[in-house]
Amino acid sequence: MRTVPVGVSARHIHLSPEDLVLLFGECAALTEFKPLSQPGQYAANETVEVIGPKGSFPKVRILGPVRRRTQLEVSRTDAFALGVNPPVRESGNIAGSAGIVIKGPAGEVKIEEGVIVAARHIHFHTNDAERYGITDKQRLSVRLHGERGLVLDQVIARVSPDYALDMHIDTDEANAAGAKTGDQAEIIG
Amino acid sequence: MRTVPVGVSARHIHLSPEDLVLLFGECAALTEFKPLSQPGQYAANETVEVIGPKGSFPKVRILGPVRRRTQLEVSRTDAFALGVNPPVRESGNIAGSAGIVIKGPAGEVKIEEGVIVAARHIHFHTNDAERYGITDKQRLSVRLHGERGLVLDQVIARVSPDYALDMHIDTDEANAAGAKTGDQAEIIG
Repeated sequence: MRTVPVGVSARHIHLSPEDLVLLFGECAALTEFKPLSQPGQYAANETVEVIGPKGSFPKVRILGPVRRRTQLEVSRTDAFALGVNPPVRESGNIAGSAGIVIKGPAGEVKIEEGVIVAARHIHFHTNDAERYGITDKQRLSVRLHGERGLVLDQVIARVSPDYALDMHIDTDEANAAGAKTGDQAEIIG
Repeated sequence: MRTVPVGVSARHIHLSPEDLVLLFGECAALTEFKPLSQPGQYAANETVEVIGPKGSFPKVRILGPVRRRTQLEVSRTDAFALGVNPPVRESGNIAGSAGIVIKGPAGEVKIEEGVIVAARHIHFHTNDAERYGITDKQRLSVRLHGERGLVLDQVIARVSPDYALDMHIDTDEANAAGAKTGDQAEIIG
């Protein structure tokens, strides 16, 4: 059986170095709150407010380290609450995605694109991918068990020697499945 | 192909006649805002506030007509926001479910049970069930198509001459699938 641990991603944001300075001031640096499943990635102590045309979230966790471009990842439920209409995208693919206002202690930034609903995906270490017979960018079907059991199609495989085995789904997907971080899912096709 | 239209249920409440009076006053009556897919059921113009230990929703739509017992149906996302922990249940099966405070223009009611996350289900008219070879209470697997395509297991068949063919899922399930009311789903097992 090809099992994979589940990691549920709540709404979060990645900041560019430029936006970090605009939001938190000169010489600002992210500080680690706790490590994430992927090596080198962490949840920061710092949070920002995100403000849409219809609603806002006062404390959105920043994930570090900084990235080349600012990216806000929300669930579809969050998107309705904010009043924005982000596309379902792979991380990093933000061209033409939705915009938002971001507010930090030192200032405000309006991004024209960068808001996405993250496409569900599995991080495979190269060794795990080989063991499971899976190639980078392959689309998989994955079963989550339980009273709200379901099979997620269109799960994107991402293979790298820098990754640790983990399936990332958002809170809508987790809640629809009655799943939580640490559950075991099963790749069925 | 055994197709079925999708109906997405947002959070809503059913009231008992007693609670309707407590919340809206003597001689209160629900008035129809728009009909629902099931014959005789309607969304009312009237709304209530529901207040949990952690959060509240100011305007929760009442569905009519009144029922024997008051029942609040929320998504798991809503439940986290309210700070309650309702079980996944079939409508009407509320023994031991979660409680909540309900506020109307004429008063407040605290229910000890009645808050549930609705178990996904399909209403079949007896003729549809016969045509599709499906029996009451059968568990089905249903495919939703699209970029967030998935297969919902544990979908409960409910068969009655009083029903119209419609699959009811909540907003978490709809958002996880990228589905909306009026989409066509496919019963695959």
